[in-house]
Amino acid sequence: MSSIITLTTDFGVEDGYVGAMKGAVFATTGSTTIVDISHDIPPQNVAHAAYVLWTASSYFPPETVHVCIVDPDVGTSRRAISLEGPRGRFVGPDSGVFTHVLTGGPRRNDVEADGPTDEAGFLEPMAVRVPDGWRAYKLTNVEFWRPEVSNTFHGRDIFAPVAGHLASGVEARKLGPRLEEVTVLNLASPAAGETEIEGRVIHVDRFGNLITNVHASDVRPGPVEVAIGNAVISAISRNYAEGDGLVALVGSNGYLEVAARNGSAARELSAGVGASVTVSPSSTGARDAAGNLSQT
Amino acid sequence: MSSIITLTTDFGVEDGYVGAMKGAVFATTGSTTIVDISHDIPPQNVAHAAYVLWTASSYFPPETVHVCIVDPDVGTSRRAISLEGPRGRFVGPDSGVFTHVLTGGPRRNDVEADGPTDEAGFLEPMAVRVPDGWRAYKLTNVEFWRPEVSNTFHGRDIFAPVAGHLASGVEARKLGPRLEEVTVLNLASPAAGETEIEGRVIHVDRFGNLITNVHASDVRPGPVEVAIGNAVISAISRNYAEGDGLVALVGSNGYLEVAARNGSAARELSAGVGASVTVSPSSTGARDAAGNLSQT
Amino acid sequence: MSSIITLTTDFGVEDGYVGAMKGAVFATTGSTTIVDISHDIPPQNVAHAAYVLWTASSYFPPETVHVCIVDPDVGTSRRAISLEGPRGRFVGPDSGVFTHVLTGGPRRNDVEADGPTDEAGFLEPMAVRVPDGWRAYKLTNVEFWRPEVSNTFHGRDIFAPVAGHLASGVEARKLGPRLEEVTVLNLASPAAGETEIEGRVIHVDRFGNLITNVHASDVRPGPVEVAIGNAVISAISRNYAEGDGLVALVGSNGYLEVAARNGSAARELSAGVGASVTVSPSSTGARDAAGNLSQT
Repeated sequence: MSSIITLTTDFGVEDGYVGAMKGAVFATTGSTTIVDISHDIPPQNVAHAAYVLWTASSYFPPETVHVCIVDPDVGTSRRAISLEGPRGRFVGPDSGVFTHVLTGGPRRNDVEADGPTDEAGFLEPMAVRVPDGWRAYKLTNVEFWRPEVSNTFHGRDIFAPVAGHLASGVEARKLGPRLEEVTVLNLASPAAGETEIEGRVIHVDRFGNLITNVHASDVRPGPVEVAIGNAVISAISRNYAEGDGLVALVGSNGYLEVAARNGSAARELSAGVGASVTVSPSSTGARDAAGNLSQT
Repeated sequence: MSSIITLTTDFGVEDGYVGAMKGAVFATTGSTTIVDISHDIPPQNVAHAAYVLWTASSYFPPETVHVCIVDPDVGTSRRAISLEGPRGRFVGPDSGVFTHVLTGGPRRNDVEADGPTDEAGFLEPMAVRVPDGWRAYKLTNVEFWRPEVSNTFHGRDIFAPVAGHLASGVEARKLGPRLEEVTVLNLASPAAGETEIEGRVIHVDRFGNLITNVHASDVRPGPVEVAIGNAVISAISRNYAEGDGLVALVGSNGYLEVAARNGSAARELSAGVGASVTVSPSSTGARDAAGNLSQT
Repeated sequence: MSSIITLTTDFGVEDGYVGAMKGAVFATTGSTTIVDISHDIPPQNVAHAAYVLWTASSYFPPETVHVCIVDPDVGTSRRAISLEGPRGRFVGPDSGVFTHVLTGGPRRNDVEADGPTDEAGFLEPMAVRVPDGWRAYKLTNVEFWRPEVSNTFHGRDIFAPVAGHLASGVEARKLGPRLEEVTVLNLASPAAGETEIEGRVIHVDRFGNLITNVHASDVRPGPVEVAIGNAVISAISRNYAEGDGLVALVGSNGYLEVAARNGSAARELSAGVGASVTVSPSSTGARDAAGNLSQT
């Protein structure tokens, strides 16, 4: 009985790429359970994939094998890797797609290597030591690949069969040599002042909700207001239905987000990934106790 | 061996919401079969979801557990419910997404509570008695939820684990107290005159086909014509390929639909959900015997 | 234990059509593994489906049952068929969707019946003898269909239950009489001159990559250049990341393709399916040994 295998890619499903990967998994494992997380990652958007993979993968059983492929440099010297740690097993290119999985979320709980907080370097890949509790391997053992490996489709020829072998019981250490460093995106932690905290939008979802890297537990107790673009939101709401127009609330992963009731906050604010968000004390608003929403 | 679980949502798949739900199911059940019906329901479009869920769910084995989440009021006092009846088992918000499942289709075979036939109230939610043969429960027993429940993502925190427990053999009556009433959308039955019947478009599909609430068995035998917008279609065809331009035919669920050969009837007629459709006797057209298409 | 069943359709997933098909499969087989290859085939685009099905299906275990439905003539006299051969088992309309599966790829390895190489007839369906090693059957035995068959949705009423029966062990020859001929699209082989070869774009993928019917093994060794539209690409690259702007490379199925680094070649060249591509000797470029990429 093999473990569950999940797939997260930017391949779309109007072509046969995802189907070929699934075929390559089944050809390796025989029967198994393949779960689509997303194939609609915007093409080559590593940051988007990193966020989606983190929000989805942490709810699966820990023995699950998660394949994530956003791989602009396929066929070059970029490394193919496998990771094992407290949040599951992972296979993909060392492009930064495992950023949040390794750091424990946008606040970077487990990684020291913060980069600059200004635009310079934001979202650029950087090398960090593999965090405690994790093991990383470079995929080099061709025994676990398809016999013929193309230069352009490692998803089918390397990652799918490797995931199949892992799910079937092959130990990760057999896949290749251990790595000391892996690549993460420089997302930068929020900048905490004495009374305020300044973060950034790190993800825009399908509904136009703007999700930030400010964790609920980073916000001081007491009434606050949230500033983004030209707008100031005077309190933190409990849900999307509370209040009209723009609302700030703690999203389902424990991070502050800005939404628009029955609309798109991204469109209303013309804001996207990288936009600055400031949370400050307020005398008019009232912050809800949101501690119970805090999740890894 | 757990039952099949299907998912119908407006979450899209470019984010991690669906993946997180699937993870929460597997964390509850271990191995199971999860089937995607649709995650591309237009955001917050309860009527679209209700139609899609009905057309798909009725072909599954009856022990299947169908999760349907279009939930504009998540986090408010709207109820979370589970239903059991002749067309399967269902889990989701009491937002009206189970309308057609409960009523037996757009013609409302099983529910007496018709609302007005004019625009007023069309598609508005209304409370009705739970139809005969069905049992409804309010989800209140936190024992079957994830330990931490967010205010914004009950799909992951309540509905997915509840579905997992149902599929694994938990009885629905353990989930919470029985309900006497549930919410359905007021879709209104067609208005039948002496010789004609006036219905409405209740769904527009990907191909631009306009699906109405006029059932094949409601149309009198003999030649008829179908009027919609400025167009009059002079007969009911057997299939999409028959005739050029606009065709009226009995669709695969037994209801009258208007289609355009190699085109979009919705675009050609600038018509959408709510548009009026009239079927009248005609001396020029010939209605095909379509009785064998009638399905629940 | 039933075989894997894959689905490739132009139904989209915003409606309930795919869900109903899956239900009809499970109602036939009980537990089984259904794999989505694509439901985002452009509506009624048989050529797109034929290419996607071929690129995906060849990586699955050979006992897999592949259902492919792009079926503009559903409900007319077009035949419903099942195929068995070296690349798997297939079920769908005889619309040409099995073209590449039967011919062994765009180069048409296994079929003699090439049509004209000019525009006339390009992509038109034509009848050919069933290739050696394959068996084709016309689906006529209603015992393996749903009890009620609509005129507009054979995916749910015929193809899904037939696939379920095949996956559960029913022999294809029980489904109906054997066929001598099947329909394929006239894609035309590339025209090989003394030194150059002229092919066509046969597929445009999500990234805007232009995939041709020129196989790597058809290109003479030595430096070549690739002309398409107004552009001349002076060499064949090893991967998408090599070089700026337009690149020509051997894609993951062994065929020449034209791509744009971090962009869409289709958009940059205003080129699509049918566009002419010429490969000629060049004194400036250097062709990589790509023989190891050649795949069926």
